[in-house]
Amino acid sequence: MNREQLFNQIQKKRSYLCIGLDTDLEKIPKHLLSCADPVFEFNKHIIDATHEFCVAYKPNIAFYEALGAKGWVSLQKTLDYIPKGIFTIADAKRGDIGNTSSLYAKAFFTQMNFDSITVAPYMGEDSVKPFLEFKGKWVILLAHTSNAGSADFQLLESKGGKRLYEEVILKSQQWATPDQLMYVVGATRADKIGEIRKLAPHHFFLVPGVGAQGGDLETVSRYGMNKQCGLLVNSSRAIIYASSGESFAEAAKNEASLVQQEMKTHLEKFL
Amino acid sequence: MNREQLFNQIQKKRSYLCIGLDTDLEKIPKHLLSCADPVFEFNKHIIDATHEFCVAYKPNIAFYEALGAKGWVSLQKTLDYIPKGIFTIADAKRGDIGNTSSLYAKAFFTQMNFDSITVAPYMGEDSVKPFLEFKGKWVILLAHTSNAGSADFQLLESKGGKRLYEEVILKSQQWATPDQLMYVVGATRADKIGEIRKLAPHHFFLVPGVGAQGGDLETVSRYGMNKQCGLLVNSSRAIIYASSGESFAEAAKNEASLVQQEMKTHLEKFL
Repeated sequence: MNREQLFNQIQKKRSYLCIGLDTDLEKIPKHLLSCADPVFEFNKHIIDATHEFCVAYKPNIAFYEALGAKGWVSLQKTLDYIPKGIFTIADAKRGDIGNTSSLYAKAFFTQMNFDSITVAPYMGEDSVKPFLEFKGKWVILLAHTSNAGSADFQLLESKGGKRLYEEVILKSQQWATPDQLMYVVGATRADKIGEIRKLAPHHFFLVPGVGAQGGDLETVSRYGMNKQCGLLVNSSRAIIYASSGESFAEAAKNEASLVQQEMKTHLEKFL
Repeated sequence: MNREQLFNQIQKKRSYLCIGLDTDLEKIPKHLLSCADPVFEFNKHIIDATHEFCVAYKPNIAFYEALGAKGWVSLQKTLDYIPKGIFTIADAKRGDIGNTSSLYAKAFFTQMNFDSITVAPYMGEDSVKPFLEFKGKWVILLAHTSNAGSADFQLLESKGGKRLYEEVILKSQQWATPDQLMYVVGATRADKIGEIRKLAPHHFFLVPGVGAQGGDLETVSRYGMNKQCGLLVNSSRAIIYASSGESFAEAAKNEASLVQQEMKTHLEKFL
């Protein structure tokens, strides 16, 4: 999916919601555990209930990998079930050198046909570039994450006066255009997003941390939006675990719908 | 495996060789491709031929992940086949926030029973700590990698005058002792390893880049060794792809044996 198509979806659905499919056997409703593939069964119901309100789904790969080989089967079935026109993100945070990055790229882009993958920048250009060689596929580079530990290294100030995450954003723009590169920008300090927007005016930001991790959708939207929206705001637990009862899908639908309605007003106001 | 046991193995085998099981269907001998599980078949022969010369095996997870669900089956079979007493490293370069890191830790430490995993430091303390909660398991943190792109961010100098990789090594020592934490330190600038040794006198270093990526075993050993050896030097392609013919295992054995003999002399000289 290209940038234009993504923006078209955002306009059509009046939403820039990404739903995180962090599907955990310990958190899904108990009655699903007797299914042959409880993870896929849960995801299927969530996707059926929420797909009209979101423009992206983001399975965090750890949840599938933790289940061993059968987790990868559930992941593939989930990906195949996501309706066409919805952007898919493998939240894998991979990063290795050239040859090996190519294999990760092949796994997620060719074997599984994800639209995008999250990548860690620590190893630099030759760990990121192999992902960019796949036409029509995206890298979503970790820049300023929303966890407490982001302060340990991402906020380190360099001799030149820039924080590490700023260096990452500036340098990586030499590697790819906004048509293939997005950034993970945490929402826990939502007012900061305006500063980060100045560093990368045209790129999409994937914003985690709205919902269970705190954050403020209105502020993120006010300071983070660009002319093509430029935001994918993720919510995982607040939507998919809105209820642990038999009506979990209905509860997820209501929650996703509420977020979408709020996004609609922000799009009208800030776009 | 604890630090004492690892050092005992090194003394017993007179070797600190780690063999990287970067098993690539495009590179293994053609006659294996008709086997039911060519990846495992190749690894089995390599392990049979080389295990007396090395103290660790390090499958790079990308090679298995690229094959989808069946790659994970090959990986598990390989891990189960590695003789007891040999240290196992999941070269996965994972790194995510708390809850999710716990799942990765569970996947590699509990489901698969690896001794250790490589972890990327970009997200900071709460992305590393969950791996440290598994008793008897190790984190091998990326510090100074051997690829060209390592210069992009790892060598950035902070206001305080320290490079990013130095900040990573110093800060992470607050999170774990040398009994649970190692560092990835590339060998492409082997003389630098002495400086890095001063920052972390007691920790083991996993040194990639000797062999196909260049590097100098003698220099690495001279400047990098501590009283418990403190080095695991990895070689992947130079050993496992020493020949692409039917006698590939014999060729790997010869190659591993040569490296071990060199290591024996370095241990006598520098330990």
